[in-house]
Amino acid sequence: MPKYLHTMIRVTDLDKTVRFFELLGLKEVRRMDHEQGRFTLLFLACPGNEDAQVELTYNWPPEDGTGEVYTGGRNFGHLAYQVENIYETCQRLMDAGVTINRPPRDGHMAFIRTPDNISIELLQDGKLEPAEPWASMPNVGEW
Amino acid sequence: MPKYLHTMIRVTDLDKTVRFFELLGLKEVRRMDHEQGRFTLLFLACPGNEDAQVELTYNWPPEDGTGEVYTGGRNFGHLAYQVENIYETCQRLMDAGVTINRPPRDGHMAFIRTPDNISIELLQDGKLEPAEPWASMPNVGEW
Repeated sequence: MPKYLHTMIRVTDLDKTVRFFELLGLKEVRRMDHEQGRFTLLFLACPGNEDAQVELTYNWPPEDGTGEVYTGGRNFGHLAYQVENIYETCQRLMDAGVTINRPPRDGHMAFIRTPDNISIELLQDGKLEPAEPWASMPNVGEW
Repeated sequence: MPKYLHTMIRVTDLDKTVRFFELLGLKEVRRMDHEQGRFTLLFLACPGNEDAQVELTYNWPPEDGTGEVYTGGRNFGHLAYQVENIYETCQRLMDAGVTINRPPRDGHMAFIRTPDNISIELLQDGKLEPAEPWASMPNVGEW
């Protein structure tokens, strides 16, 4: 039987991206620095289910210039996480300066983006009653 | 605690993409046709671990024209699956016409692509002895 291991995304700022996923409740489980190849691989997972991971690839910028900017594509859609309380999660993200692109107006679904614009879907475990300020919060940009 | 649910990718040919993931050993676990929105969502997972899924979004082509072609981006990297025997998996894929972009020359790692060019990493559970024809098989394209 095959086994799902991880989804890999490329990141331009490792610390910023780790903080983003930590706001969602994920924890770092493994980190490998490759001096020769000049890249770092960092794996995060949800506590209690360390088998399904997100892998961050950080290519060290060239010593004489700036790093690559990672464009998005349409064939990849998003990563989805179930959360215990979508309002609390979105509030924690907002307080840390993360834009809620699609607020949880329905008490069930929200979309945000990582610092490199990877779309993240948040899904409430069950459904909460619609509540302000979320119920009347407009969308911001795309997701 | 949050919980990883799925990675969503957009597909231009649902049946072809389902066949691709079935060659890897995944099985369909859920399918929803949305007549009004003209899209289908299809979820696949590895047997024994149905919690970590890949979601295929198929937007029905407009009735008067052709569908969108889904471009790739650099911020998304790949999906990774562990397999029991990487040679058998790659042989099964090749026999079905799938290009092995990065053959498992080392008995450990291979890369292929879905019909919409989503990169898939295959990792051997443990490591096999290097073996022909894989050991001397060249790379094809990018992954």
